[in-house]
Amino acid sequence: MNLSGVDFAQLAQEALKRCQVLSCFSEEPGRLTRTFLSPPMREVHRTLAGWMEELGMAVRVDALGNLIGHYPGHSPNAPLFLLGSHVDTVRDAGAYDGALGVTLALALIGGLGGKRLPFALEVIAFSEEEGVRFGVPFLGSKAVTGQFEPDLLRLKDAQGQTVAEAIRAFGLEPAHIPQAAYNPAQVKGFLEFHIEQGPVLEALGYPLGLVEGIVGQSRLEVAFRGQAGHAGTTPMHLRKDALAGAAEWMVLVEREARDEPGLVATVGLITALPGAANVIPGEVRMSLDVRHPYDEVRSLAVANLVTRAQQVAQRRGLELGYRTLHEQPAVPCDPKLSEMLALSVQAQGYPVHRMVSGAGHDAMIMSALCPSALLFLRSPGGLSHHPEESVWPQDAEAALRVGLDFLHRLAAEA
Amino acid sequence: MNLSGVDFAQLAQEALKRCQVLSCFSEEPGRLTRTFLSPPMREVHRTLAGWMEELGMAVRVDALGNLIGHYPGHSPNAPLFLLGSHVDTVRDAGAYDGALGVTLALALIGGLGGKRLPFALEVIAFSEEEGVRFGVPFLGSKAVTGQFEPDLLRLKDAQGQTVAEAIRAFGLEPAHIPQAAYNPAQVKGFLEFHIEQGPVLEALGYPLGLVEGIVGQSRLEVAFRGQAGHAGTTPMHLRKDALAGAAEWMVLVEREARDEPGLVATVGLITALPGAANVIPGEVRMSLDVRHPYDEVRSLAVANLVTRAQQVAQRRGLELGYRTLHEQPAVPCDPKLSEMLALSVQAQGYPVHRMVSGAGHDAMIMSALCPSALLFLRSPGGLSHHPEESVWPQDAEAALRVGLDFLHRLAAEA
Repeated sequence: MNLSGVDFAQLAQEALKRCQVLSCFSEEPGRLTRTFLSPPMREVHRTLAGWMEELGMAVRVDALGNLIGHYPGHSPNAPLFLLGSHVDTVRDAGAYDGALGVTLALALIGGLGGKRLPFALEVIAFSEEEGVRFGVPFLGSKAVTGQFEPDLLRLKDAQGQTVAEAIRAFGLEPAHIPQAAYNPAQVKGFLEFHIEQGPVLEALGYPLGLVEGIVGQSRLEVAFRGQAGHAGTTPMHLRKDALAGAAEWMVLVEREARDEPGLVATVGLITALPGAANVIPGEVRMSLDVRHPYDEVRSLAVANLVTRAQQVAQRRGLELGYRTLHEQPAVPCDPKLSEMLALSVQAQGYPVHRMVSGAGHDAMIMSALCPSALLFLRSPGGLSHHPEESVWPQDAEAALRVGLDFLHRLAAEA
Repeated sequence: MNLSGVDFAQLAQEALKRCQVLSCFSEEPGRLTRTFLSPPMREVHRTLAGWMEELGMAVRVDALGNLIGHYPGHSPNAPLFLLGSHVDTVRDAGAYDGALGVTLALALIGGLGGKRLPFALEVIAFSEEEGVRFGVPFLGSKAVTGQFEPDLLRLKDAQGQTVAEAIRAFGLEPAHIPQAAYNPAQVKGFLEFHIEQGPVLEALGYPLGLVEGIVGQSRLEVAFRGQAGHAGTTPMHLRKDALAGAAEWMVLVEREARDEPGLVATVGLITALPGAANVIPGEVRMSLDVRHPYDEVRSLAVANLVTRAQQVAQRRGLELGYRTLHEQPAVPCDPKLSEMLALSVQAQGYPVHRMVSGAGHDAMIMSALCPSALLFLRSPGGLSHHPEESVWPQDAEAALRVGLDFLHRLAAEA
């Protein structure tokens, strides 16, 4: 495959610079916060539309606010291949989470230099992925894949505005959401570029990671209840210290997770009551977040950690309470599309590192519509959801080389 | 020693009932809260003064609001022996913490049936022990023992009133505080009855505990700092989880305390930051409270726990921060007076259980003035600083039998 003649360094530089440009469109002065259909989203649309039109793309916005650029294929009846990522952000975000997947997709189109392929390309700038404004993530990709439940229109934001009202306020029509869904028969696949948002690639020294699947997730609330007591007058052997029990269990949580490859388990929230230096905690409440690429492994791990908690509680005369708040099955990426992506990574001279994503991405939702693949770019310092989030230019260049190789491979196969 | 003819059951019942009466004098409707020199303290004084006068005692209030009843001895020049405890309370208090030591002392005077001893008895209702209003405990006993530093007069309560202003508002004169101090040459000793405020006596099935000393206390703030990270995308081996480190250390804290007889160590406060279910904690702050009857053991234990924390931090690549907030040496009770009290416990047919107090008491401050002894009454359920705090009538009776035996022993020795 001959990619010579393409100035990848220049395209990469431009893609990163465009992320910086988009990061100026924010709801808050001095930092980047851009939620679903917020006013700065219009400026993002205007800017992206300009870049897309320069590339000869036809631009449209669907009823959920996804901006889509169409780059025609050989024939008007050519199937579609989709590229893209999201353009909403968390609060006080970095410039690359989401936006990079869009600007790299545009750089790929640019890299085609006007060449047509046996399929049309559409670049989607998903309107919503982070779940910040309405508490529910993936609104954009749900619409595109026909998974947008009408109930979602009734969700309210912090100001009391519903999704339906937000859509109308943006000049769109909720009744048209069903038309936003692609016809699966017309779509060959979806490829997303995204920053890793973790430290793995940096630790290994690799620019790219081939995502084989997105982990499933269980979120629980776990509570130990013992007896509050005076820290001075209650001897150790007469205590029912809920925090001592919680500590013992947290050590086991970490150990179990370390012993099971691919498993992560996290206690991120902890509250000890009554919460005074001279009072033995009578109750401790914790969050437990467990993730693994295989649902059976995750379910077994959760059951195992609950059993461990029961054992700790029983041995200490504590009471255990727990409930599952959230359960999300694992989503594998498409093996065939991912294998093709792996060939491109290899062909372009980069190490093929297969990994799972510990966080959800649009590609996870898109899997319900079409074969989907996800390529991670190294996150310097593992930093993400943070204003200092960054991407190395040579990694963006690597992603573009692999992406263009991949499109050519896909074209050759068609 | 012949104590027949004294109706101890009736005296005990009355002492408990009087605690209930005093518990009605509160700053808050529906629950007992009575802080230093608060309005209900006047009603306590009026009521106690009435009971004292019925017993033929002369009543006075010193410049710090301690109410003192004087029961004359054989001669006007007889030395003094002091009894009593405090009549201030914590917020939402029980009826017995403090007040019981005063009503039992009055019951002892009643048990003398007008008989004079070779020493005068004074019953002190200390005005302040809990440290609620001004944040500093033992104001009453500090005045009585000449340990009241003038700086304390400048402390302010939540309303901005100083100690000096509170004293004046109660109709007393701060300039007279030095005269509140007893002359050590005139005082033979001090005996305090107090509820245990812990579960030890109940667990052993004993009504009384002979306190040999009050533990020393160290209070520290301990912090582990690691790196916050995404709970999904950060594999276990690349984490610097401050809470996992804290958990490992808390397990060691409990183990060290269990392995050292008489040591108690408590983590009562814990905060994990940033504090979200899907974020690995980057920082954890904890309190550490360590108490032991021997200061050397306590100091060694604190040093040991800090070393353990350093080891945990080093092994995990965390940063450790710690500082000592408070350091209080242990105070032994007077061995001779306590031995005499032990003889009385034994003579009255109760098991002699020697123990240390894990909490501070007026007797600890009084030790600086005169030989002091402290007798604990069993706390049902270990409950204290709680409206359901209680005392069994037979335990109050036991305390009175022992107390009267003790006074007779003291008289026989004089």
